[in-house]
Amino acid sequence: MRGRFVLSGARIKRTTSNVKHLRVFTQTVWMAYMAKRLIEEGKSTTLRDLYYMAESYGVKFKDQQESDSIIADVEALLGVSREQLRIFPEERATIYGDLTIRYNVHGYERTILNLTASPDGVAIGPALAAADFQDCGAEKVIMVESGGMFTRLIEEKAHEKFKAVLIHTAGQAPRLARHFAYRLKRELGLPVYIFTDGDPWGAHIAMVIISGSANAAHVDSLVIPDAKWIGILPTDIEDYRLPFEKFNEKDWKRLHDLMADPRYQSPFWRNQLKKFEEEGKKSEQQALSIYGLSYVTEKYLPEKLI
Amino acid sequence: MRGRFVLSGARIKRTTSNVKHLRVFTQTVWMAYMAKRLIEEGKSTTLRDLYYMAESYGVKFKDQQESDSIIADVEALLGVSREQLRIFPEERATIYGDLTIRYNVHGYERTILNLTASPDGVAIGPALAAADFQDCGAEKVIMVESGGMFTRLIEEKAHEKFKAVLIHTAGQAPRLARHFAYRLKRELGLPVYIFTDGDPWGAHIAMVIISGSANAAHVDSLVIPDAKWIGILPTDIEDYRLPFEKFNEKDWKRLHDLMADPRYQSPFWRNQLKKFEEEGKKSEQQALSIYGLSYVTEKYLPEKLI
Repeated sequence: MRGRFVLSGARIKRTTSNVKHLRVFTQTVWMAYMAKRLIEEGKSTTLRDLYYMAESYGVKFKDQQESDSIIADVEALLGVSREQLRIFPEERATIYGDLTIRYNVHGYERTILNLTASPDGVAIGPALAAADFQDCGAEKVIMVESGGMFTRLIEEKAHEKFKAVLIHTAGQAPRLARHFAYRLKRELGLPVYIFTDGDPWGAHIAMVIISGSANAAHVDSLVIPDAKWIGILPTDIEDYRLPFEKFNEKDWKRLHDLMADPRYQSPFWRNQLKKFEEEGKKSEQQALSIYGLSYVTEKYLPEKLI
Repeated sequence: MRGRFVLSGARIKRTTSNVKHLRVFTQTVWMAYMAKRLIEEGKSTTLRDLYYMAESYGVKFKDQQESDSIIADVEALLGVSREQLRIFPEERATIYGDLTIRYNVHGYERTILNLTASPDGVAIGPALAAADFQDCGAEKVIMVESGGMFTRLIEEKAHEKFKAVLIHTAGQAPRLARHFAYRLKRELGLPVYIFTDGDPWGAHIAMVIISGSANAAHVDSLVIPDAKWIGILPTDIEDYRLPFEKFNEKDWKRLHDLMADPRYQSPFWRNQLKKFEEEGKKSEQQALSIYGLSYVTEKYLPEKLI
């Protein structure tokens, strides 16, 4: 039981001497060539860009799905993530906390920035994701699902109180945010906590950070096995007497999907999902506001971050 | 023809001497009281938070829709936006460019930041939205729909080449981004350009920035009537020979909604929507990559920003 997706040992051989392989072999070579050019020229791009650019090179893809899967092949082949090949996702998470980084990108060589520079946070884009760590006053990372809660935690000085770097994931954590948290764990030894809504969707935000997603199972630097889900747990809804709503049809379907998912078979997760199933209750981060705006930093988080 | 929603002169009177009004009168007073407290304590909150907090004060709302509509009443009553009452949306846009601001929020009094500090951009949250403008080397604002294009423009130094402040809206521009662009226009006189995908959804991102949304018709500081949609226009798909896709059912439905919308009745907009209807073709910002990664800054934008 690894708790994450692991690729089986299957191999594929592609060769120009087999005419059936010619098309996909060409696509793979072209993609590797583009990655090399992007790195050399210090430019970055997106999955969508590459799909369009292929056409002007006379390389045909049926649709973007096909070009995306070739990129996954190149990742697996080289053992690096597509971000290291300068192919970036659209989504941006935001970060705030006492961490000083040094940028490396063109025009910003050796520029130093402390990530408390803006009280609204700094975007985790391609430049920040590849920056060096210079200095860190924080001792942990808290990843936060909602923007309202992220702003609340900054205002309540949670970063000082808990010596924490705060990351706003805005729902499912974008790959760059997961990779950045992975680096904070690996290079600086900071434990990672995940603070979401108390519903199957929140649980899965945590799970993807902990165990990775199925379609990035070949990328190790997106998995943080000892990251901890600190709630809102289904058991918290009772323990903290939070206002709740009843599951709707979509919530039930999502819960049953999770129960069948191999990543959710550990005792901790099975218990939590069972509690969801027994009660059919969900509760948001914002529900903590029923006890006032400071309750989350004065009561909830101190009991969770231990 | 104002091209935006304008409230009619209708008035509502609510009084404690009418028992039917008592409930909603109480709700309104409580909401105004909470806004006052938030301002005094320098805290911020969200629509969702207020809905939950009401319960702990014994003030009942049927659902969040009811509490949201009371906040809109308080906005109209006081003639200010809910952001000025420190009630903020979840969504965050990102900004990059040669603009130096001074924060006013607690802990950041007089902190100066130039918005090129991070090459990934700075989040437009509550603190930035309320900051003072200190110095500005930019001469225009370009609002950009997609994150990939925003990163591209920074890498290609569009901010220097076009002396532009870039704002990434990530789809529909959040209220804080629209308000910030409004301030750049009003306080610094910067013209605002809107660069989106070439489809009915992109058109509507532009329209909401230009003419406002129906449910914020009472908030003037969210409307930029002379902001300009610079594409991808439906006419550009032909003119620039861009790769395109055919409209699907949702696109057609959206287009017909827009054609019936009073904000789209000017000659410019009627022509553009007509072109969509005749051709049924849509094209993304990324489609410009068919001519290479620099095409957008070397050819497309120079022809549009005149």
